[in-house]
Amino acid sequence: MDLQASNSKQRICFCLKVKPERLAEYTQRHREVWPEMLEALRRAGWENYSLFLREDGLLIGYFETADFAGALAAMAASEVNRRWQQEMAPFFDGDPSLLPDQQIRPIPEIFHLP
Amino acid sequence: MDLQASNSKQRICFCLKVKPERLAEYTQRHREVWPEMLEALRRAGWENYSLFLREDGLLIGYFETADFAGALAAMAASEVNRRWQQEMAPFFDGDPSLLPDQQIRPIPEIFHLP
Repeated sequence: MDLQASNSKQRICFCLKVKPERLAEYTQRHREVWPEMLEALRRAGWENYSLFLREDGLLIGYFETADFAGALAAMAASEVNRRWQQEMAPFFDGDPSLLPDQQIRPIPEIFHLP
Repeated sequence: MDLQASNSKQRICFCLKVKPERLAEYTQRHREVWPEMLEALRRAGWENYSLFLREDGLLIGYFETADFAGALAAMAASEVNRRWQQEMAPFFDGDPSLLPDQQIRPIPEIFHLP
């Protein structure tokens, strides 16, 4: 049984890598996320969404959603998300041919206590 | 303002490193966590606690609690937790003079959408 699908809500965790020299600016940008971007996330079903940033640039995302594939697809189809991801792309180490959200790979959940 | 303290509940994220050659066994052990260990976590105020394990051994923990310092201290004082941590210690890369839960360092939260 897939643990992440054992409840009606899926818990999603992913990692990306922020360039160490741009941590402060990346953090600052996330204090001022555009209201229309927050609204797009809500409408796409992203709930209880946190980003944690380690001092070496490891970025950990956690969110809950009823439908991971749907939540990702809804954001991918959102115009404000495309603009946001394009602005965020230069902050990341990774595949430059993909926007940051196109590099989200869920990490398997091996344990959950409600 | 500390974002993680801006609500009554704190969201805690931490990373540890599991030895790559022991991932399967570590995963299996977490399908059978002792009921008294689960009960100790609940009593200590660990809520919505997940562990995510990446294929390279990166272990990501996420939980919510009303009082992080208290939740950690309550587990540190728990006899069943000491036994559990001693059994888990050989699975980890890290400081061998510390039990795994003694190596938990919260990663700063830079963004939250409820």
